[in-house]
Amino acid sequence: MGAKLTSAVLGATGYSGLELTRILERHPRLDRPVLLRREGSTERATDLADVFPELSGSGSYPLQKLSWQELKRQGVELLFMATPHEASRSIVPEALSQGFRVVDLSGAWRLKEARHRAIYSFQDADALTAAELTERAIYGLPELNGDRIAAAQLVANPGCYATSVILALLPLASGGLIDRQRGVIADSKSGVSGAGKAPTSRNHFMSVADNFSAYSVFHHRHLGEMVEQLGLEDAELTFTPHLLPIPRGILSTIYVRLNKVMTRGEVEACLRDFYSGKHWVRIFSTPTLPQLHFSLYTNYCDLGFCLAEDGQRLVLVSCVDNLLKGAAGQAVQNMNLMYGWGEREGLQ
Amino acid sequence: MGAKLTSAVLGATGYSGLELTRILERHPRLDRPVLLRREGSTERATDLADVFPELSGSGSYPLQKLSWQELKRQGVELLFMATPHEASRSIVPEALSQGFRVVDLSGAWRLKEARHRAIYSFQDADALTAAELTERAIYGLPELNGDRIAAAQLVANPGCYATSVILALLPLASGGLIDRQRGVIADSKSGVSGAGKAPTSRNHFMSVADNFSAYSVFHHRHLGEMVEQLGLEDAELTFTPHLLPIPRGILSTIYVRLNKVMTRGEVEACLRDFYSGKHWVRIFSTPTLPQLHFSLYTNYCDLGFCLAEDGQRLVLVSCVDNLLKGAAGQAVQNMNLMYGWGEREGLQ
Amino acid sequence: MGAKLTSAVLGATGYSGLELTRILERHPRLDRPVLLRREGSTERATDLADVFPELSGSGSYPLQKLSWQELKRQGVELLFMATPHEASRSIVPEALSQGFRVVDLSGAWRLKEARHRAIYSFQDADALTAAELTERAIYGLPELNGDRIAAAQLVANPGCYATSVILALLPLASGGLIDRQRGVIADSKSGVSGAGKAPTSRNHFMSVADNFSAYSVFHHRHLGEMVEQLGLEDAELTFTPHLLPIPRGILSTIYVRLNKVMTRGEVEACLRDFYSGKHWVRIFSTPTLPQLHFSLYTNYCDLGFCLAEDGQRLVLVSCVDNLLKGAAGQAVQNMNLMYGWGEREGLQ
Amino acid sequence: MGAKLTSAVLGATGYSGLELTRILERHPRLDRPVLLRREGSTERATDLADVFPELSGSGSYPLQKLSWQELKRQGVELLFMATPHEASRSIVPEALSQGFRVVDLSGAWRLKEARHRAIYSFQDADALTAAELTERAIYGLPELNGDRIAAAQLVANPGCYATSVILALLPLASGGLIDRQRGVIADSKSGVSGAGKAPTSRNHFMSVADNFSAYSVFHHRHLGEMVEQLGLEDAELTFTPHLLPIPRGILSTIYVRLNKVMTRGEVEACLRDFYSGKHWVRIFSTPTLPQLHFSLYTNYCDLGFCLAEDGQRLVLVSCVDNLLKGAAGQAVQNMNLMYGWGEREGLQ
Repeated sequence: MGAKLTSAVLGATGYSGLELTRILERHPRLDRPVLLRREGSTERATDLADVFPELSGSGSYPLQKLSWQELKRQGVELLFMATPHEASRSIVPEALSQGFRVVDLSGAWRLKEARHRAIYSFQDADALTAAELTERAIYGLPELNGDRIAAAQLVANPGCYATSVILALLPLASGGLIDRQRGVIADSKSGVSGAGKAPTSRNHFMSVADNFSAYSVFHHRHLGEMVEQLGLEDAELTFTPHLLPIPRGILSTIYVRLNKVMTRGEVEACLRDFYSGKHWVRIFSTPTLPQLHFSLYTNYCDLGFCLAEDGQRLVLVSCVDNLLKGAAGQAVQNMNLMYGWGEREGLQ
Repeated sequence: MGAKLTSAVLGATGYSGLELTRILERHPRLDRPVLLRREGSTERATDLADVFPELSGSGSYPLQKLSWQELKRQGVELLFMATPHEASRSIVPEALSQGFRVVDLSGAWRLKEARHRAIYSFQDADALTAAELTERAIYGLPELNGDRIAAAQLVANPGCYATSVILALLPLASGGLIDRQRGVIADSKSGVSGAGKAPTSRNHFMSVADNFSAYSVFHHRHLGEMVEQLGLEDAELTFTPHLLPIPRGILSTIYVRLNKVMTRGEVEACLRDFYSGKHWVRIFSTPTLPQLHFSLYTNYCDLGFCLAEDGQRLVLVSCVDNLLKGAAGQAVQNMNLMYGWGEREGLQ
Repeated sequence: MGAKLTSAVLGATGYSGLELTRILERHPRLDRPVLLRREGSTERATDLADVFPELSGSGSYPLQKLSWQELKRQGVELLFMATPHEASRSIVPEALSQGFRVVDLSGAWRLKEARHRAIYSFQDADALTAAELTERAIYGLPELNGDRIAAAQLVANPGCYATSVILALLPLASGGLIDRQRGVIADSKSGVSGAGKAPTSRNHFMSVADNFSAYSVFHHRHLGEMVEQLGLEDAELTFTPHLLPIPRGILSTIYVRLNKVMTRGEVEACLRDFYSGKHWVRIFSTPTLPQLHFSLYTNYCDLGFCLAEDGQRLVLVSCVDNLLKGAAGQAVQNMNLMYGWGEREGLQ
Repeated sequence: MGAKLTSAVLGATGYSGLELTRILERHPRLDRPVLLRREGSTERATDLADVFPELSGSGSYPLQKLSWQELKRQGVELLFMATPHEASRSIVPEALSQGFRVVDLSGAWRLKEARHRAIYSFQDADALTAAELTERAIYGLPELNGDRIAAAQLVANPGCYATSVILALLPLASGGLIDRQRGVIADSKSGVSGAGKAPTSRNHFMSVADNFSAYSVFHHRHLGEMVEQLGLEDAELTFTPHLLPIPRGILSTIYVRLNKVMTRGEVEACLRDFYSGKHWVRIFSTPTLPQLHFSLYTNYCDLGFCLAEDGQRLVLVSCVDNLLKGAAGQAVQNMNLMYGWGEREGLQ
C-alpha cells in the first residue's frame, strides 16, 4: 500500500472535528492525524481525550499549536479545517501558500457569488487574495465535482443542509426536469449537533427537548450554496431549516413540480442513472421512503420520493448524517478523491 | 350558575379520551363525566385510574358499559366519542335518534365529498342514514363555524393535522389571497400520541427515538378535510405528515404564494383581523415564529409567518397540541359553543 | 371568599418561577401575582411573556424592580423567592423586617447545622441575623411540619431531591424501623430543569440527550436537608444524584434494611398510616411501583415499595415533579397552610 | 492471515443480531457471516436489509433456514445464537453434537445453580443433556474466564446488566474487600434496546419517552449470574433495573462497603491491577466518573468510583453499551479468544 499520508486537523475539539479524527485514525491510507488547537479556542485541554473521554483507551491525542514549520517537520501534506469560517478565511491563504492541500469544512470558500457571501460578513485582510482563492476553491460535493476535486489544492466541503438538498435535486436539475417558475421548496429538519458546541440558550436541553421549531427562514447561510450548485435563481428556491430534538441527522422534504408528466418508474430511473456508480448515494424504490435512522452513523445520502397521481407534483425525501455525509465523512470522501483512493476507503 | 351538565365519554382509555376526561372533570359547568368502555376494546380495566395510574388520588373513575337507558337515567345529555371512526359510524346514528347531542372526535362525519370519505372504507349498515348524518354534521372548527356549532346536534371534531393547517390558511383563503395555481404545500410534523395507543413496530420506542420520517405522502386521511374546508381543489394542496420523536404537538410549515404583492404588515393584519375576538388563536408578530413548546398543554393554535422580500412567497408556521386544540380541547371548545358558554371555560 | 391575597414572585424568569407564576395566577384565593425582576439577572425583558412566549394571550406579565415601598403600595403580603440562595440570603432579612411573610424556594434557610450550610459558602453581611433567621425558618415540608408552617413568617421550601427522599423515608424513620447501622442509600435520578436555566456545557442538548450520568456523589447540597429532617447521622445516608435526559421529574430508588422482619402488608400500612389525610402523597400497593410519568405536572409525591422475601431488605421508589412538589407546587401548598386554606386549593 | 473463518448467526433480525452481523461482516478474520432465520420468527423477510434498510448498499444479506447439512456445506464452524433462551435451549445441544462451536447470547446456559435457572422455566426435552451442557458451558466474560473460553465448545455470553455489574465488582470481590454482611446494591439503568423488539405497551414510545421506572425488583433474571460469578449469596446482592428513555446503554451505580479502610489511590490501584492488560475495560481516575455517552457504540466497559471520607463507603459507576459489551461485542470478543486472535480484532 506504500507510505501513508500524514494529515492534520485544525479544530478537532468540535463535533465535526471529533468525527473527523475518529475516521482519520482508522483510515488504512493514513498515519494517525496531527491534531491542532485553534488559536482563540476556549478549550484549554492538551489532549483531545480530555475533551471527549470516549476517546480514552487508544493512546494519546495530543493537541498542538499551529506552526507551519512543525507541520512540515511532521510530514503533513493535507490540512482539514474544522473551524469557524472566520478562522478558515484567515488561515487557509497561508496554508496554501505554504504548499499544503486543504479541505475546509467551513463556509469560507463555498460561495461564488458575492451577494451570497455577504451573509457571512467576511472581513478579509487581503480581499484580493480571498477572491482569488474563492475562485480556485472547488465545491467538494464528490458526486458532482469528482474530477475537479481530484486535482484541487483547496476543497470547500459543502454545508450539511446543502448536501442533503443538492443531492436530492441534482438529477432533476441537471436533466432540466424542474418547473423552475413554480419554484422549489426545501423543508429541512436537523439534529442539534449541526448548531455547534458553544452553550447558548438555544441549545440548552430545555429549549430543544420535546420542542420543534423553524428558524432562519429565507436567509439561512446554506441557501446560497444550493442555488449556485443547482443553477437556480435565488427566488426559485425556498429553504426552511428546522431544529429536531435529537443529536444528529438531517431529513429534507423537497417539493418540486416537474415540467412534464412522468411515471414513477421514470423518476426513479432518473435518480438511479444519475447516481450510477456513486457508492454513497442510496436510492429507495417508491413507495418506500428513507428514514433518518437509516443514514445515521454512515456516510450515505439516502434518497426516496413520492409522485402524485398527476405525474408532476413530486416530493423528494433526503437523509444524511450531518456530521458524516454532511461534514466529516464527506471531507474524507473528498480526500479519497484528492489522492486517487477508492471513495469507500476508511468510511465503512 | 344553575344546574350542571352531565356528559359521557366513550373511549376514555385512549390518549384523547384521557385528556378529555381530565378537562371535563375540572370544567365548572359540568358534573363529573360518565366514562364508557368501548365495546370490543382490549382494555379490561373497570376503572380508568387502573389504565392511567396518574389519575389516582382523586376518587374513582368507573368505566361502564354503553347503555342508552342507563345514560338517560344518569341524566347524560352530551356524548363525546373518542373512538375509532368505525365505532363512531355505527354508534352515533343511534345516539342521535335517542336524543343525545354528540361531539365526535373521530373522522367519521367530517367529510362532505364521497371521494374523500372513500379513504376511510366505511361500511355502513344503513348507508342512507349515514349520508344524511354526514350532511347534518357540523365541522367543529369553532373559529370557522361558531354559529352552526352552537345549534348542532352532531359536531364532527376536526383532525389534529387539519386543525393546524386550516387555521393557518383560513385568513388567506377566505380573503382570496392564495395563488391557487401555484399550489399550497403543508409540511407537518407531529408527536407520537397522534398515532394511537395500540403497540406496533412503528410506535416502538426504538423505531421513533432519534428518528424522523415522512409518511402517507399525498394520501393522508386529513387531506380531504383541509381541501373541503379551505375550498381548494385536491391537487392544489400537497400535504406531507412526518413523525417527530416527541410525545405530543404538531408544527406545520405551510408554503403559499400570494396572488399579489403584500407587505409584512398587511399579512399580519390579515391574520389578526380574521382572528379578532377569537381567544384560542395567537398571532406572533414577524419575525418571531411560534415554537412547538409554546402551545403544548394549551388549547391555543399559534400562528406566525415569514414573507420573502418579493412580497409573495409566504411561509406560515402553525403549532397546536394535537391532544388539545387538535382533539380534546377543541371538543370542549365546541361544547362551550353548543351550550352558550364562554369559549375559554374549562380550558385555562 | 372574601378579599384576595396579593403575592409577589422574585425570580419569575427561572423555571420554578414560571411554574409558580402559572399556579398563582389561577389560584382562587389570590390576585394576579406581582412579578419582580431579580437584581443582577441577565434577563432584560420587561414582560414575562417575552421570556416565555407560551404565556402570551392572557394579558401582560409586567416585571418590576424590587421596591419594598412599591410592594406595600400594591398590597403585597407574601413574597416568594425563586432566586439563587445568595440572593435569598441577602434579601430575605430585609423582607422580614419590612413585615412580609416569605416562602423561599432556595437553599438559603433550610439547614440547621453549620457543617451542612458550609457547602453553600454563604457570605452573610450580618452573620448574626442570618443565624437567627435560620433558627426561625421553618422547613417547608407540609406533610412533616404542617402546624409550624401555618404560623411561620419564613418558610424554607425543601430541595427537590430532598422532598423525594425525605417523604419516602419519613414513615420508617419516625417509626424507628430503619437499621441505621447498615445505612440508607438514596439513588436519585432527575430531569434537567432542576439544574437551572443558565446555558452551560453540562446542560447543552448534546451533553444530555441519549446520555445518563451520576454527579456530586457524597457531597450534593441536598444531603444535609435529608439527614437533618430524617434524624440520621451524615454517614448513615449515601445519596447519589443522576441526570436523566428528560425535561422534568425525579425518581428516587431508596434502599433500607428494616431492623425487624416485616410483611408487605405491614410496610404498606406503615406508609398509609403515616400519610393518612395527606392529599399530596399517593401510596402504591405492592407490587405496583410508581413511574415518573404518573407524578409529572402534578403536585403529588408517589411512593411504592418492594420487600425482599427475607422481610428486611426494602426498596422504596419515590417520584415527584421537581418543579411542582419539588419546588413551586410545594411552595403553594405551604402558602395554603400559612393562610389556613385547603391544601389542595389552586393545585388541582 | 490464512483462510478465513465462516460463522453463522441465528436470530439476525433482532437488535443484538443486527449488531453482531455488522461486526462480523467487517471482521478481518471472517468471511461474510451466514444469516439464519429462526424457526417460528414472525419476520417474513428473506433479506436482512429488508428488515433493517440501513444495511442496504453493501450487497445482499440473505436469510436462510437452519439446516445442519447446509451449514457444513458452507463451511460454517462457529454458530452465534441471538435467540430467545427457549430456542437456544432446544437448538444448541444438536449444534454441539453436529460439531459446531457455539456462542450463545441468550440466558440458556449461563446459570450453574438450579434455583437460579428456575426463573427461566426451561422445559427441556432431554433434561439430562441440558444439565450436562450447562456444566460444560463457559460463562463468556473474557476478563474473568479468558483461558476457559479459549478452549470452549459452548460459550454462554453474559447478560447485559450482569456484564456491567460483575465487571465493576470483580476486582473487589476477588480481593475479598467487600463487607458481604452489609450487602451490595446494584442500581442499574438501561436503554430500551435491551428489552427486545416485539412491540408491547411497555416499549410503546408514549410509555417510555419522558418517563423513568424501576422493574423486576429482587427477581430479575440476571441476578443469578451476578451472584454466581461474584461468589456471593443471593441475599447479599440487591439488584434493581430501571428503564431509561434512550435507545441504548447501561449505567450501573453500585454501593459497596469495604471491609477495611482504604484510600482512593488503593481502590484505583485495585481496579487498575485487576484489569491490567485487559483492553476492553477502562478505569477512570477519581473524581472523574464515566458517563453513559463515553461507552456507547464501543465495546468498552467504563469503570469509575467515589470513596467516602470514611474510607469504606464506596460508590462504583459502570457503563456499557448493552448491544456491544453487553451482547454482540462481547460475543465477538469471545470468538477472538476461541480462535486465538487478538481481543481487539474487529471491534475497533
